Amino acid sequence: MTFEPTTHDAAGRIAHLTTPHGTITTPTLLPVINPNKTLITPHDMTTLFHTDILITNSYIIYKDPHLRQQALDHGLHHLLNFQGTIMTDSGTFQSHVYGDVHLEPLQIVDFQRHIGSDIGTILDIFSEPHHTHTQAQTDITETIRRASISIPHKGTMMLACPVQGGIYPDLRTHCAQELSNLHADLYPIGGVVPLMETQRYTDLTNVIIASKQGLDPSRPVHLFGAGHPLIFPLAVALGCDLFDSSAYAKYAADDRYLLPWGTEKLPDLTDLPCPCPICSTHTASELQAMTGDERVRALALHNLYVSYAELRTIRAAIAGGWLWELVEQRAASNPALADALRLLREPNAQRFLEMHEPRSKARAIRYTGTATIFRPLLQRFQDQLLTRYESPYTTTIVIPERGKPFAAYYPELVKVLSALAADVVVDSSFGPVPLALDEMFPCAQSLFPGIVDDETRHEASRRLQDFLGKKTVIAWSPGGRFPDALTGPALDLDTRRIRAVADMQFGRGAGAILFSGRLQLVKSKATLKIRNVLVDGEHVVSMRAADGMFTLKLAGARRLLSGFAAPLLRVTVNDDAVPFVRDGKSVFSKFVSGCDPGLRLGDECLIVDGQDALLGVGRLLLCPGEMGVFQVGVAVKMREGSGGEVDAS
Amino acid sequence: MTFEPTTHDAAGRIAHLTTPHGTITTPTLLPVINPNKTLITPHDMTTLFHTDILITNSYIIYKDPHLRQQALDHGLHHLLNFQGTIMTDSGTFQSHVYGDVHLEPLQIVDFQRHIGSDIGTILDIFSEPHHTHTQAQTDITETIRRASISIPHKGTMMLACPVQGGIYPDLRTHCAQELSNLHADLYPIGGVVPLMETQRYTDLTNVIIASKQGLDPSRPVHLFGAGHPLIFPLAVALGCDLFDSSAYAKYAADDRYLLPWGTEKLPDLTDLPCPCPICSTHTASELQAMTGDERVRALALHNLYVSYAELRTIRAAIAGGWLWELVEQRAASNPALADALRLLREPNAQRFLEMHEPRSKARAIRYTGTATIFRPLLQRFQDQLLTRYESPYTTTIVIPERGKPFAAYYPELVKVLSALAADVVVDSSFGPVPLALDEMFPCAQSLFPGIVDDETRHEASRRLQDFLGKKTVIAWSPGGRFPDALTGPALDLDTRRIRAVADMQFGRGAGAILFSGRLQLVKSKATLKIRNVLVDGEHVVSMRAADGMFTLKLAGARRLLSGFAAPLLRVTVNDDAVPFVRDGKSVFSKFVSGCDPGLRLGDECLIVDGQDALLGVGRLLLCPGEMGVFQVGVAVKMREGSGGEVDAS
Repeated sequence: MTFEPTTHDAAGRIAHLTTPHGTITTPTLLPVINPNKTLITPHDMTTLFHTDILITNSYIIYKDPHLRQQALDHGLHHLLNFQGTIMTDSGTFQSHVYGDVHLEPLQIVDFQRHIGSDIGTILDIFSEPHHTHTQAQTDITETIRRASISIPHKGTMMLACPVQGGIYPDLRTHCAQELSNLHADLYPIGGVVPLMETQRYTDLTNVIIASKQGLDPSRPVHLFGAGHPLIFPLAVALGCDLFDSSAYAKYAADDRYLLPWGTEKLPDLTDLPCPCPICSTHTASELQAMTGDERVRALALHNLYVSYAELRTIRAAIAGGWLWELVEQRAASNPALADALRLLREPNAQRFLEMHEPRSKARAIRYTGTATIFRPLLQRFQDQLLTRYESPYTTTIVIPERGKPFAAYYPELVKVLSALAADVVVDSSFGPVPLALDEMFPCAQSLFPGIVDDETRHEASRRLQDFLGKKTVIAWSPGGRFPDALTGPALDLDTRRIRAVADMQFGRGAGAILFSGRLQLVKSKATLKIRNVLVDGEHVVSMRAADGMFTLKLAGARRLLSGFAAPLLRVTVNDDAVPFVRDGKSVFSKFVSGCDPGLRLGDECLIVDGQDALLGVGRLLLCPGEMGVFQVGVAVKMREGSGGEVDAS
Repeated sequence: MTFEPTTHDAAGRIAHLTTPHGTITTPTLLPVINPNKTLITPHDMTTLFHTDILITNSYIIYKDPHLRQQALDHGLHHLLNFQGTIMTDSGTFQSHVYGDVHLEPLQIVDFQRHIGSDIGTILDIFSEPHHTHTQAQTDITETIRRASISIPHKGTMMLACPVQGGIYPDLRTHCAQELSNLHADLYPIGGVVPLMETQRYTDLTNVIIASKQGLDPSRPVHLFGAGHPLIFPLAVALGCDLFDSSAYAKYAADDRYLLPWGTEKLPDLTDLPCPCPICSTHTASELQAMTGDERVRALALHNLYVSYAELRTIRAAIAGGWLWELVEQRAASNPALADALRLLREPNAQRFLEMHEPRSKARAIRYTGTATIFRPLLQRFQDQLLTRYESPYTTTIVIPERGKPFAAYYPELVKVLSALAADVVVDSSFGPVPLALDEMFPCAQSLFPGIVDDETRHEASRRLQDFLGKKTVIAWSPGGRFPDALTGPALDLDTRRIRAVADMQFGRGAGAILFSGRLQLVKSKATLKIRNVLVDGEHVVSMRAADGMFTLKLAGARRLLSGFAAPLLRVTVNDDAVPFVRDGKSVFSKFVSGCDPGLRLGDECLIVDGQDALLGVGRLLLCPGEMGVFQVGVAVKMREGSGGEVDAS
């Protein structure tokens, strides 16, 4: 089994999960196959939905003498006529529904192994949401005990050990940590179906975050029993990789029609609000007029088309950097989800999310409503303005934004301002933006409406006040004159810009470290924007057009290495990897022995050996907490090894 | 040609448009067929998308000698091989793109008639957004002149006369009024493509509202050149019925992929975020790897699947009463659309929207964000609280809501409060709710999150302050004691409830008028809710379980007739219709001679003759402004004629 992430957004990831029956791209959905009553066969699923992983229940097979014998004789893949990856559940959910299942924990693990399940599940204790803290504590103690005795029985089968602990964050985190120490292959988050059935999405959110905070980040996380697409975007943004859907069939049996934004009852629909192959070839009345079995099958197909499309949408959103937009849009369709989203503003959730949030995105940040300004990336930018940005002046001039995209703001004004011995900051829709940072992500890459809601406006004002602190402030309005006293020799905007961007990107003081010496700026002939910065003839950084941030060159890395003490900006590699890295090979996660915890996904970093000697510069593809934990995959994409340049991308 | 609305939501409507080539359900989309270059044939469109109406350009056919001859010899339907309804454009858009088109206005009208177009279009003047008021004035004068000379030439062809006037609301309204006086068959809103191309959705919104305010409401309205699904929900909510899409083809040719929430470039997509037949059977890389023609066709099909599905979604939303939810969700995906939505809070827009807004909905109002509390229905409820609700007490106790659905709020508390000689009002998420109205729509039928955004909270507080005015107020919090002085004999909650609901529904004083006499309440055995109210043995009203509002019985109608002076609550019919209406037949629009302008869609009304004699009671299916204007269709669904009861629904 390997699990290798390739792309990140929010705390979500696109990854490749390899099992003996193939490689699956996550996040994805495991349709539930009821071995007793197959509504859509695994074969049809493969044909229609490219299904490459599904889940069935080993307890149901075990209980039925005929199915059991078939599975033992010919194997699970033969029984289901499916050649992809099969995960099995253990009977825990049945214990939730029916009470005790009269099963020994090891008995069902052995059975799953015998019938050839790719991913088996231990018989964990379903910790009900109404359990007291003491009861839930007992539940997880037994779950952890069962995990520890089950793992030696797994053989070559992958084994899933669900995180339990009811609605108690401390127990969820503790259970997750204990299970992580046992090195299971996959970690479902269990006991959440009752929360989803009653739309307790704030509790669900707390449970997911608390579980993720205790889990080994290198293992896939399955949200057990989550089959309604409404919850997929948020769950993925919080770090869930797998979902299983019996909802497609259960809802269909009840004439319910799944949509990414909720559920409709088929008899209520005059028109089918979906472009799927079922809904594009049938009218609502045609579906309503079908016989029972026909209709249930058609609805089940629709439900699966929609569910798979929502997962494709999520993967496209991760790849495109717009997962938060998607999460917020879905929250606009369900007040309970809006409550859950508001919870993400809490300090613990913010810490968790900010740690995973990439440094920049492939596309602009789009305002969807009050939630947007609280996104981890915009919060981080404002927080770092306070800790990293340093104005060379005592006076600050505040100019109001007028709902224009920031980059287009008063180009003539810029000329006047750059001759002023004062700092200039724009009062923007998402908080203060110093003029020197107006091309850096996310300032020029944020799309907000002309008039934002009150909550956003208040938050932006609060941030501006925090930023201004006790500075001498001059409020300016379009057409207003500047005080003569401030007019005089001043730093040109280019110099302000490269210093401010370097400070924000690498830490306070980085601009002074990188750019002390004879400066030479190479600009794009087409856009007149800064492309390369040379100091004393050495090319130290390039500025990327897309996000206005620096790509670090080896000469720049050398300056930062001597200017910033370890572990700042460093990724440290094992001795074994040193020759490869110096030659410009990318850094594999398993060779990383240390990492500056302040680095973020997408950051430029210095790659050093155990003696803090520079081996090269590169770009982070994992979070600091994931480095060295993942045993497969690249942690740092090498840009330049100290042995020579390798990759100009 | 007939155009008959069947269902309303916001200012939008589902209607049947009948032409010589069939009956079309609107809102719908007219795919643009370029007669020179057919990407998807009309025949394929019928097969794949059930296309029953399309649009092509008569100017392009006219210019091409071969096409022209074909069309003149065999007719337009033969030329396009399409048996559904065909609308033709006139060359106006070409004049916008290329300058003058060297065409006489009547020449192209005659040509459209000769080739058998179902719906032709006059050669109007494309009023550019950058035109000055004076220029735009000249544009509409000429457009109106051309309409007036063209209409006598239309023969049996339906003729569309576009509303022009640039971005000037006064000119749009004036042009719409003048064109309405000419009795054209269909009114496109023209000159809006440049606004949509640059996402000037606030200007577009102003233009649509101003045009609608001048237009004959009984004619279909076409938003000319609107082909991106992003704009469909808002445009329908403002009263547009038809759209035309060349976007499906133009975007496809440019590798652009339409989505209800925006546009993606195909090369940027790792996964296809859509369940349509194209996207469910191809991967992103398969689409990307296709040859040019194949790819453009596949993208065009996807674009059409998505566009048609969005129109089905809109129709389902109108039928289900959730069009505003859909509009607000879409606005969450585009900041320019969010700006447009904010504009709907302006007094003129609110007046326009409130007039069309039905009295209640089939389902609960769902919060989507800051826009929700400003929806016309919630605004109207709060406005009418000030004008219609009257407390029998001088003291008001305010109790805070705690994020629960209102109906579930403190059932025990209700018992205590109903023994108090004070009014009780809940400080809810959308404003004050007197306890006596807690089961009336929208109070029990509003789903808001536990914590709402600041703007909603402020608006709700403002409304509470307006409501409380100079009353004596006691703030109460859960667990608090009530002042003893207020404890004592008081009206029971049932009596408070029926009086308050009657006042809110029919006008201040209606409760006293309806319920003076010996009261008898019939309650549901299952829910214990009020079902029927009898006064002195007469059944005057029934209370509907779904929205907690009254259905008026004939006995109640008689009381209101004598208690409220004409025209209040009345719909007046012509003498011709009197015998039919008295016998319990529904009231057709063309027989209506007057209507209380304060009535709203879905309201109970008194049907009277010219002498204000009661003919029956019924329910409004049209807005007051539409009554008598529509020449087809039912204006009032009869519930009980004075000659006897007919329909208990």
